[in-house]
Amino acid sequence: MSDATTDRSVPLWGMFELRLSGPTGGNPFKDVSLVATFTQAGRSLKATGFYDGEGRYCVRFMPDAMGQWRYRTESNESALDGVTGVFDVGQAAESNHGPVRVANTFHFKYADGTRYTNIGTTAYVWNLQGEAMEQQTLATLANAPFTKIRMCVFPKHYRYNQNEPELYPFPLLKRGESQWPASSPVPGWEFDFERFEPAYFRHLEKRINDLAALGVEADLILFHPYDRWGFSRMRPEQDDRYLRYLVSRLAAFPNVWWSMANEYDFMSTKSPADWNRFIDIVCETDPHGHLLSVHNGFAPFDYNHPKITHVSIQRPYTERSALWRQQFGKPVSVDECCYEGDISEAWGDISAQELVHRFWNGVVNGGYVTHGETYYNNAEELWWAKGGSLRGDSVARIAFLRRVMEAGPAEGLDPMSNTGHYQILMAGGLDLITLPQLMAPPPGEEGWTRVGANFATAGQAHRYYLSYFGTNQPGEVAASVPPSERYRATLIDTWDMTETEIATNVERGQLLHFPAKPYQALLLRRIDA
Amino acid sequence: MSDATTDRSVPLWGMFELRLSGPTGGNPFKDVSLVATFTQAGRSLKATGFYDGEGRYCVRFMPDAMGQWRYRTESNESALDGVTGVFDVGQAAESNHGPVRVANTFHFKYADGTRYTNIGTTAYVWNLQGEAMEQQTLATLANAPFTKIRMCVFPKHYRYNQNEPELYPFPLLKRGESQWPASSPVPGWEFDFERFEPAYFRHLEKRINDLAALGVEADLILFHPYDRWGFSRMRPEQDDRYLRYLVSRLAAFPNVWWSMANEYDFMSTKSPADWNRFIDIVCETDPHGHLLSVHNGFAPFDYNHPKITHVSIQRPYTERSALWRQQFGKPVSVDECCYEGDISEAWGDISAQELVHRFWNGVVNGGYVTHGETYYNNAEELWWAKGGSLRGDSVARIAFLRRVMEAGPAEGLDPMSNTGHYQILMAGGLDLITLPQLMAPPPGEEGWTRVGANFATAGQAHRYYLSYFGTNQPGEVAASVPPSERYRATLIDTWDMTETEIATNVERGQLLHFPAKPYQALLLRRIDA
Repeated sequence: MSDATTDRSVPLWGMFELRLSGPTGGNPFKDVSLVATFTQAGRSLKATGFYDGEGRYCVRFMPDAMGQWRYRTESNESALDGVTGVFDVGQAAESNHGPVRVANTFHFKYADGTRYTNIGTTAYVWNLQGEAMEQQTLATLANAPFTKIRMCVFPKHYRYNQNEPELYPFPLLKRGESQWPASSPVPGWEFDFERFEPAYFRHLEKRINDLAALGVEADLILFHPYDRWGFSRMRPEQDDRYLRYLVSRLAAFPNVWWSMANEYDFMSTKSPADWNRFIDIVCETDPHGHLLSVHNGFAPFDYNHPKITHVSIQRPYTERSALWRQQFGKPVSVDECCYEGDISEAWGDISAQELVHRFWNGVVNGGYVTHGETYYNNAEELWWAKGGSLRGDSVARIAFLRRVMEAGPAEGLDPMSNTGHYQILMAGGLDLITLPQLMAPPPGEEGWTRVGANFATAGQAHRYYLSYFGTNQPGEVAASVPPSERYRATLIDTWDMTETEIATNVERGQLLHFPAKPYQALLLRRIDA
Repeated sequence: MSDATTDRSVPLWGMFELRLSGPTGGNPFKDVSLVATFTQAGRSLKATGFYDGEGRYCVRFMPDAMGQWRYRTESNESALDGVTGVFDVGQAAESNHGPVRVANTFHFKYADGTRYTNIGTTAYVWNLQGEAMEQQTLATLANAPFTKIRMCVFPKHYRYNQNEPELYPFPLLKRGESQWPASSPVPGWEFDFERFEPAYFRHLEKRINDLAALGVEADLILFHPYDRWGFSRMRPEQDDRYLRYLVSRLAAFPNVWWSMANEYDFMSTKSPADWNRFIDIVCETDPHGHLLSVHNGFAPFDYNHPKITHVSIQRPYTERSALWRQQFGKPVSVDECCYEGDISEAWGDISAQELVHRFWNGVVNGGYVTHGETYYNNAEELWWAKGGSLRGDSVARIAFLRRVMEAGPAEGLDPMSNTGHYQILMAGGLDLITLPQLMAPPPGEEGWTRVGANFATAGQAHRYYLSYFGTNQPGEVAASVPPSERYRATLIDTWDMTETEIATNVERGQLLHFPAKPYQALLLRRIDA
């Protein structure tokens, strides 16, 4: 017995959705199990279904290969059990490159091989601000350089975040009807953490699709400490059920990343064992292997955890990206390095110049950096939390940096020499590097005599070398390129957003002279190969 | 038998000089011992004499108390032995405040109690550039804010330092006449490290006196690695004899500080035991207890050494001064934090803005910072090595900072709260501070509720709070002052050098608003006490 639509066609990385009718009695969120096995060419993947309210059950699946797929459900409810079907998967939609994956160890690309440049922004609860402002955020993103947005599933309670969302992820019960104490915005009512509010999640899904249409990945934050509703203080089995429900609903969206927490170490209600269990649950429930990380407050998570795909770190000194790459062997995304703004909090009041500086420091050390903006306004609509519009001066410079990156090697930029270590050292990392490391010849360049370039350089050997000088302002630099190769030298003003060719046919050791000015970069591109 | 002038009068902290005639045969620098004991009111101090060439022997002494002093010499030469005399010590000369001493654990003052604000500059061998340029340096210093200059006894060999000095500290011998191999600038000749060239030291003394007349302390560097003459590679007994000779000559100059080395850890010819022996020799030979430290390259010296009076450290992150104060319990002078300039070396090409930023970061963390300038010119006359003239934009801002400091508490500025720790943390020091330390109430302010001020503040409790925001640009700050006190708030633009009163009668927790801009500081001065 089956009410499934069969023989449908779904594009590659599109969403196949199996909709079934089932029981409404009891608590379907807890009582009903539903899982479907999808098979193709001897390969099978399991996707967990979820209850969408009003007797609707659903299993979603994002096929990662073209051709015919078959499925079969299992459930403890006979109406949902043993449902089978077949569907065809054709060419991907033009705008859908599939989920983003790790590539070349330290970088990312879409599943179809298209280049993905990870340039994030932050608007934690932009999706809970009502239609008008959410549309404004989408319009802003359409004209911004960002390819990722850090955003929460749960609403946020914090300074400048006092408004209530229109919906909540859990239904409200009259006080005393729920066995779990929790606060709620409605006197006499409290949240029922044993059920979900499907409309809340449908709205989230709509916004994730809106982001996909703009080419923006949703770096979804599953837990965070900034809470007045009790969502950070649920019981372990409620946390786990929430994760399974969320991932069952969202894993088939190609542009979703899992961020287990914002500032996991500030959540006193969770232990290290909780975080490891959460990671396991998300990975078990997600058949599609989306990117996964854990964002920290002070203490970085152990990114060596085998299920963590990339380093999502909070630190202002983005120049240590080269060391974190070495330490963890994964892509480094500095997902919080303070925000451009003018509020009194030190994490929310750096200058545009400083934020752009941190972007460049991350990039020339082989990392990626995420933006945020916290200019105060009387409506308390700060981009970092609520989205809306951007007024800062860093965005245009970040767009310029993105253009520079995307005109460079498709493989991404890797630290090119140990000179970055000196930069790291000068920035405070003496305790992170030994003197022999510092003095050693650049990796892969052991045969060279070192030319005194004490700034960080990233690129691809024998082709592309991008150096950034930051608050240093040399007026002379010796070209640090391999012998017997020729390069074109371009001086980049990272603030004024200019690129000036200063020399061509540049050879190893050749002295380049240019006006001394802070925040410049030098690009050497091979011309004889 | 004595040819001493007796019954002379010397001003307090002036130089009493006992000149004696003695043997010229053999090697008087090695063969003749001479020491004088100076006594007053039951207290006695020993000053070692030195040979000044041409049969002249000399003992110098800087009396630190008024009234009648007596002396008596001891020597292995009868002509110099048992010489006695008496002299009176009167009021100090108006411009002589005596040597600089440590005061209030973390600060400095002159022996007469006058305020001393430690604001150094760097011109390693300005005293070896010939009369015209040396006079130019003195004229520059006369109009500069600097109260200290870091300078070497020995000449310097380095990039931009290829010129020969007019004199050398050791006489030249025809090759083969000295038993010690050394290189020399004259083919066929080599240095005789068994003798000294008194004229070299007399010139140094003249320049130290010139500095004294300008109110500038000479932070004399006794050894350094940048050497083509062999002065860094003498035998241990030659090193030791050099130190005794130098200190015998110079200890009676009030404005001398002993810096055992520039970048001691880059001197592969010296061991840790050598440095400890050098410190002992200098302290034994100096009856006046001048300030003493050891400047590092990468690895800081152990400033807990009981004979080291202050931390003289090389590090770009001056904001760690608060931690170094805690670690060593001594004044912190960040004597190298990179120089304003445009050369290709990363230590010599930071922007004026960045150097001024490092000055302020040091000061609001209870430390002191030293300047240097390395703009290239065709004559290769870079201030940092040769002195001459200054063209940078930091000097005027450093002068402004000095005025701010000197209008503040005479005791100096001490870190006022743990908010500095947050600043340090954000600058890369997470590994240096524990979370409980970070979260602890400010020392001495345990009874307070913390107001979220995440920037460094220094001052004196209940009187004066100076906060610096750096690349942060808050437009709102809550006044973090004790309850029931009233303050005047002044906004300081550290780059534009303006001070704007923005509020008076400011109370604890009061929100102050001002234009958001990087590199501003906020000063709160008590008005009701």
